[in-house]
Amino acid sequence: MLFSRPMIPIDILVYGIGLAGVAAQAAAGVLEAGRKPFDLFGVVIVALAAALGGGSLRDLLLDRTVFWIADQSYLITALTAGLVTFALVRFVRLPGKLFLLPDAVGLALFTVSGTQAALALGAPWLVASLMGVVTGVFGGIVRDVLCNEVPLVFSGELYATASWAGALLLIAMKASGATPGTSALAAGVLVLVIRLGAMRFGWRLPVFSARL
Amino acid sequence: MLFSRPMIPIDILVYGIGLAGVAAQAAAGVLEAGRKPFDLFGVVIVALAAALGGGSLRDLLLDRTVFWIADQSYLITALTAGLVTFALVRFVRLPGKLFLLPDAVGLALFTVSGTQAALALGAPWLVASLMGVVTGVFGGIVRDVLCNEVPLVFSGELYATASWAGALLLIAMKASGATPGTSALAAGVLVLVIRLGAMRFGWRLPVFSARL
Amino acid sequence: MLFSRPMIPIDILVYGIGLAGVAAQAAAGVLEAGRKPFDLFGVVIVALAAALGGGSLRDLLLDRTVFWIADQSYLITALTAGLVTFALVRFVRLPGKLFLLPDAVGLALFTVSGTQAALALGAPWLVASLMGVVTGVFGGIVRDVLCNEVPLVFSGELYATASWAGALLLIAMKASGATPGTSALAAGVLVLVIRLGAMRFGWRLPVFSARL
Repeated sequence: MLFSRPMIPIDILVYGIGLAGVAAQAAAGVLEAGRKPFDLFGVVIVALAAALGGGSLRDLLLDRTVFWIADQSYLITALTAGLVTFALVRFVRLPGKLFLLPDAVGLALFTVSGTQAALALGAPWLVASLMGVVTGVFGGIVRDVLCNEVPLVFSGELYATASWAGALLLIAMKASGATPGTSALAAGVLVLVIRLGAMRFGWRLPVFSARL
Repeated sequence: MLFSRPMIPIDILVYGIGLAGVAAQAAAGVLEAGRKPFDLFGVVIVALAAALGGGSLRDLLLDRTVFWIADQSYLITALTAGLVTFALVRFVRLPGKLFLLPDAVGLALFTVSGTQAALALGAPWLVASLMGVVTGVFGGIVRDVLCNEVPLVFSGELYATASWAGALLLIAMKASGATPGTSALAAGVLVLVIRLGAMRFGWRLPVFSARL
Repeated sequence: MLFSRPMIPIDILVYGIGLAGVAAQAAAGVLEAGRKPFDLFGVVIVALAAALGGGSLRDLLLDRTVFWIADQSYLITALTAGLVTFALVRFVRLPGKLFLLPDAVGLALFTVSGTQAALALGAPWLVASLMGVVTGVFGGIVRDVLCNEVPLVFSGELYATASWAGALLLIAMKASGATPGTSALAAGVLVLVIRLGAMRFGWRLPVFSARL
């Protein structure tokens, strides 16, 4: 019964974008893992961790059924995207920025879905916003830890900040009485705008400068 | 319903010490992250992981509601402590040892609360003692992994050992019929004494010396 | 109640092999940790993470009671094996390959038990096979992350691949109507044969070679 529940009746378009986001993060995971002398298995595991890690941690913390266990499509998508990317890079030189746009779309969608899932369970607003961020960025953190690198998302152009801003907007709009659809759309657009602006104009957060 | 349950009626003092321990571990997380070129988000995530990681793993393993999701105060405290520390270190030179005393108090309290939580769920004694240790030290391990460092707690002056000793004393006293309050107090004091003694006198465990 | 449920009535031999596998992975964890200047606690934690990490992640993802919390024997076995290895390496030079055979047996058993546990909960086939792999290899990944090393299992001779092949065989045989016992035996033997063959003949997966 745990696994046979029907798919949550969300819009097909949103579902498709979610799968595209998973695929983009898996592909980005392959490119990251490719800097290390990993074999096919290592690359696949890094790709799966990148694509599924954020939503998995969210579901574990909220005590929900892990999304890719409830719906195998996400796992198949991540696996396929990882294998295809692995095969492609042997023959063609993929531009590293190829995945940045779907990745940004995925970040927007994961933020919205993560925040909504937490709100639906009655989580307080700050927890809910953090769940949106976790869903969006934790996969990338796990990817970098597995590659024995400092997480990329801890520095560089705005990424998690875009996610957090969108999550907070979603919560504020819902609290103000906006419809779920409008709130989700506005929040997703905000994430996208900030992320794409950061990529284009190099927006960054202040870097820590302790006098230790 | 998951989130609306009332706070467990523990003593206000203990609750306050728990928040102070969370704050101390968040602040220590900021100082650790400050050695890396992380931005504000990176520092905040490391601080949250340091402050909340141990209790989160305990709650996941024991299948309890994660403590900072059930009670948002811990998350707010960790976030505030992290941000304040981040801001302070730009202007004043904080002595690295500033956080060692509240951190030791937090270790004592987390050990006691983690062990008690496991015992309350009927966990066997060895598991319960390990849960006390996990609650006390796992946050620091996650902090160091995220910073791409070998965990500090795996070497150096006694830290986890103090936690384990306290957890075992708590279990032994309860088994001997001591009241919960007396057992908790004695265990907490033991953790504090060992940890402060280790800091003062440099007590250490034997270091591994394999002939490989 | 959570913890007092009786042991699942599996065959005593299989149970013993499972404990041997846990012991072997704990011992291998000690040898890995021994390359770092860890103290006794650090070595023990790495050993426990290596021995119990895979099954723990499987149980968390599947929302089962964590196996070493339900049955303390696994924790005691891992702890004892870690401590004995820690003590032994001070006096005798243990050949690094000493643990490879029990480790391979453990891999086979963990693969079978992990896959079966997921199937019993109604998980789809791809998820179930991944759970078998996670049970077998995630402990080693955590071990290496804690030691601040790139996971060994991401390169080198076939290890996870052996696990995945066995998990898929188990699922295919069950789907074809084979008895649980026959399926489990065949799957376990396949894992062992591939792993031992890889150790003997140096079988490897293709290594990633991106033109980045």
